[in-house]
Amino acid sequence: MREVRVIGTGMIRFGKYPEKTLADLAWPAVLQALAEAGVERRDVGAAWCGTALGGMMAGQRILKPLGMTSIPIANVENACASSATAFREGYIAVGAGIYDCALVIGAEKLTKLRGGPLPVEQEDWEASYGLMMPALYAMRARRYLHDHKFGPEVLAQVSVKARKHGVKNEDAQIQQEISLEEALASRPIAEPLRIADCCPTGDGAAAVVIASAEFARKLSRQGVRIASSTLNSGKFMTGFRDFTSPEITKRAAHEAYEAAGIGPEDVDLAEVHDAFSIAELLYYEALGFCAGGDAPKLLADGVTSLGGRIPVNPSGGLLSKGHPVGATGVAQIVEIVRQLENRAGGRQVDDAKVGMAHVTGGGISGLDHGACAIHIFAR
Amino acid sequence: MREVRVIGTGMIRFGKYPEKTLADLAWPAVLQALAEAGVERRDVGAAWCGTALGGMMAGQRILKPLGMTSIPIANVENACASSATAFREGYIAVGAGIYDCALVIGAEKLTKLRGGPLPVEQEDWEASYGLMMPALYAMRARRYLHDHKFGPEVLAQVSVKARKHGVKNEDAQIQQEISLEEALASRPIAEPLRIADCCPTGDGAAAVVIASAEFARKLSRQGVRIASSTLNSGKFMTGFRDFTSPEITKRAAHEAYEAAGIGPEDVDLAEVHDAFSIAELLYYEALGFCAGGDAPKLLADGVTSLGGRIPVNPSGGLLSKGHPVGATGVAQIVEIVRQLENRAGGRQVDDAKVGMAHVTGGGISGLDHGACAIHIFAR
Repeated sequence: MREVRVIGTGMIRFGKYPEKTLADLAWPAVLQALAEAGVERRDVGAAWCGTALGGMMAGQRILKPLGMTSIPIANVENACASSATAFREGYIAVGAGIYDCALVIGAEKLTKLRGGPLPVEQEDWEASYGLMMPALYAMRARRYLHDHKFGPEVLAQVSVKARKHGVKNEDAQIQQEISLEEALASRPIAEPLRIADCCPTGDGAAAVVIASAEFARKLSRQGVRIASSTLNSGKFMTGFRDFTSPEITKRAAHEAYEAAGIGPEDVDLAEVHDAFSIAELLYYEALGFCAGGDAPKLLADGVTSLGGRIPVNPSGGLLSKGHPVGATGVAQIVEIVRQLENRAGGRQVDDAKVGMAHVTGGGISGLDHGACAIHIFAR
Repeated sequence: MREVRVIGTGMIRFGKYPEKTLADLAWPAVLQALAEAGVERRDVGAAWCGTALGGMMAGQRILKPLGMTSIPIANVENACASSATAFREGYIAVGAGIYDCALVIGAEKLTKLRGGPLPVEQEDWEASYGLMMPALYAMRARRYLHDHKFGPEVLAQVSVKARKHGVKNEDAQIQQEISLEEALASRPIAEPLRIADCCPTGDGAAAVVIASAEFARKLSRQGVRIASSTLNSGKFMTGFRDFTSPEITKRAAHEAYEAAGIGPEDVDLAEVHDAFSIAELLYYEALGFCAGGDAPKLLADGVTSLGGRIPVNPSGGLLSKGHPVGATGVAQIVEIVRQLENRAGGRQVDDAKVGMAHVTGGGISGLDHGACAIHIFAR
């Protein structure tokens, strides 16, 4: 595998766009990524499109208005990890030398659904008993708070930080701060989670252009190097008796660090899958940023806030940005790349050299069929 | 890219299994492929699952009952070309040296839909005007018959051949011959297409194990070499003024032959995408098996029948086998591999050395967003 770099990024502001098609949402992100990369449409050798619920041939529908449908296009699904998985597929093909330059898109239009939590597969028995995503994360939260003797304010603090970061991100769906009191008093969803603990649903799209190092050099575009790409499936959590140890993320993190030749102490910033506030705390621990039970302290000490040692979700995370399922993975990568290229504006992480994008996806309860993708980038 | 070989195949008999889940359909095919390859579950480094309408995380749901969900799993969609595209993704990753042994699955459960033609995307304007798949192919058929002055009996002859082959395939949904008279008198669907001209819908699953040549050697499994893998998107047909020249297939065929270093005259057998009888005739021409307008003669002369110079769809094709969208691509590959390994039983093509699997996928009308995958195999 040869070196592969991200040389262009694009995304739209996530939000609710019921009047738009999936293609309407995504082609502007594609054009932005191409312009940033400085490549022509004809330079793109192939495209991968990640979407979970976007329907058949999403990539073709998105590229049709751009006249770019004559290239190989593969559509990739892995629930919330759909476009991170698509990114990995593109990375492998460029790394293998099949294409010099390729496009990866993430897109989702959740407003075409009826709203509320994600729909479930009929054969998913856990979900049929009411274990929808918010309920699942609520169980994890209860267990975590019980085990480590914390109150719900440690959850609310995640949301407070997310919103503080999100205000500085013009692509975030929610760009409004929230106080600890407001978060704690917000509408209950599934005890102890309140609406402030849950990412908003919505529509969104993001895109990146990836290329071989040689191709990037020809364009005089340095871009950002993909230091490792890890995908895993398996148990979303360890089992019914331990809801708080996301096995799949731990395993993926171990592999990701090893492949990149670094440790968690080398990560300068991370975008992690904070679909619910509790998730971010659990992922601090699973990703090795702190020991088990120490996540609330890490957060309270400001270590994971902008200005801290390892800012987590400087973009505002899913809690601010929204979580249009299939768009999320690539949107996280867009943030990391912009940060490493020192062009993240008011939310810039100082001197960022190594960034991580982490996303998980689960059928619904995902007891045994989750996915986790971790990408590490270095400038 | 290093050499990659198919070392194990599996499929279930296609048919209507409304009581089964997608996982129920597919895991037996996976086990069969693993057994043929002579590999243990732990030898499989990663899996790709192609499905068009199977819902989120199909691969994980399928591998869950086999305890195989801890590996990287990517789900791939490209309409009818879904699992051929998944196969290509797996081929690239094994070829790139990331995995030594991987699994590719194709699965679909169409009986969970309400029946009839495939559902359409709301934003697909051609479909919203009634241009569903059968109507589209009917227009192509009318044009072809008009241009080359043939009657509907040339279509019926495709079905007669398909059924003749299908009788010898215990995995085919329809295992019953049909006479020319019966085909011509069968229920009209969209003039000039009759029910005998249309592939049956149904459920199905197929799987293959692929591996590096070195890994195959260690197992003392020769398998079948992947000589070229081509994926393209673009126009399903050339335009409104020429419905009969499938541009995307022509272009993919050109690339596939070039990459494999062969020409159409070197192909000993082919599985082509005969979703409708007219399609097979058009593909004879697009794949270079004969000149434009000569397809009916090629068929009538027995060239494409078992015993002929280049048997097409010895499996019975989609017309006999059924067309559970996402399962089709891998099922075609299963047939080619078994033929090249000289274990196709009563439908064995003598001394087959080179085989081709061709599949197309289209949004619905696919005027500008089809997909075409061609794989060439050699023993």
